[in-house]
Amino acid sequence: MTKLRVHNLAVSIDGFATGEGRTFETPFGHAGQRLMTWFFPTHSFVSMTGHDAEAVGGGTRGVDDAFAAASQVGIGAEIMGRGKFGPQLGPWEDESWRGWWGEEPPFHTPVVVLTHHARPDLPVGETTFLFRDASPREALDLAAVEADGLDVRLGGGPTVVREFLEADLVDHLHIVVVPIVLGRGVRLWDGLENLEERFDVEVTASPSGVVHYVFTRKQ
Amino acid sequence: MTKLRVHNLAVSIDGFATGEGRTFETPFGHAGQRLMTWFFPTHSFVSMTGHDAEAVGGGTRGVDDAFAAASQVGIGAEIMGRGKFGPQLGPWEDESWRGWWGEEPPFHTPVVVLTHHARPDLPVGETTFLFRDASPREALDLAAVEADGLDVRLGGGPTVVREFLEADLVDHLHIVVVPIVLGRGVRLWDGLENLEERFDVEVTASPSGVVHYVFTRKQ
Repeated sequence: MTKLRVHNLAVSIDGFATGEGRTFETPFGHAGQRLMTWFFPTHSFVSMTGHDAEAVGGGTRGVDDAFAAASQVGIGAEIMGRGKFGPQLGPWEDESWRGWWGEEPPFHTPVVVLTHHARPDLPVGETTFLFRDASPREALDLAAVEADGLDVRLGGGPTVVREFLEADLVDHLHIVVVPIVLGRGVRLWDGLENLEERFDVEVTASPSGVVHYVFTRKQ
Repeated sequence: MTKLRVHNLAVSIDGFATGEGRTFETPFGHAGQRLMTWFFPTHSFVSMTGHDAEAVGGGTRGVDDAFAAASQVGIGAEIMGRGKFGPQLGPWEDESWRGWWGEEPPFHTPVVVLTHHARPDLPVGETTFLFRDASPREALDLAAVEADGLDVRLGGGPTVVREFLEADLVDHLHIVVVPIVLGRGVRLWDGLENLEERFDVEVTASPSGVVHYVFTRKQ
């Protein structure tokens, strides 16, 4: 049975999953890289990007890496909001730009990109981006077919995750709370009052200072 | 050197320290008791209230109790907002009502109650309530004299804590994050962007599901 899983979604202690003022150069806005500094030293990140593996000795293998690694296992497709593909709004004006992820994106599966603006399917390396104007339910049904018996990762951003949570489609939700006060940006938890009633919750504090929350949908 | 310390201040994972719709019967509004359920089983709470000590075998002695106990040590005075004394707004209309805390309040020290409305000092058991219209700095100076070399506890509510944090008067801040989404109420973190830059932060997850954050002011 295909599960819909959210992994490594970082929020500040005041609940913002991204900052204010997103641009091409600053995908997290004024948050900069602060929501992801827990992730960068991990073996999972280092081995994904490659380029500074030697500098950090192959990366850490503690609890932050364990959670990062878990996100890679058993995934057959991803769903993401358009903002995770690129910063453009409105109709696609430059289809030659192939997203934020370079020539070998780290997904290696079909990726459903939610957008109101049609665009041909786009293979990049081992990843194929499928641009679809779809409801959460429709997107999940499509991704589940693409995943071919494996699970589907819901890759964000926060607005998309919130929509899928509101539609009660998420089976596994891994949130990383970073001990910073961002003050402004996009809130993850808005509109999700009493969310915890639908999930079992497990909490693990990391020596890095972040806290890993695992929400597992109640049977 | 007197320190100003906040202890056991519970917030939901979406950052609300109290719910919407506070009344005499529901001091946390729609949050009910959900922000404090981690606290009730502790030995510290049970021995403070007494009445159900036998029912729970004297209370738990784990990490939640350790934090609860620490809040009692070395305190010579407290500062609280008027809302922690009682639910009234505006001029005092019934001075015979002596607050939410019964005939032996759990403070056992002078307590500065911040209010714009004068009222005579009120001894109740071992506690004396001092009603003062004071800025955070003035209230702290007064409480420090009353504490006579010990520390001052800043007892809340969240709006008061925020004001003292904005004035950079808090030395120790213990926050308990409860894994519930309240959705509405009074936010603790608003206006405190980059608060973490002034503090060292330590994080401990409890088996009860709450997370204890200790912010210690940088030297």
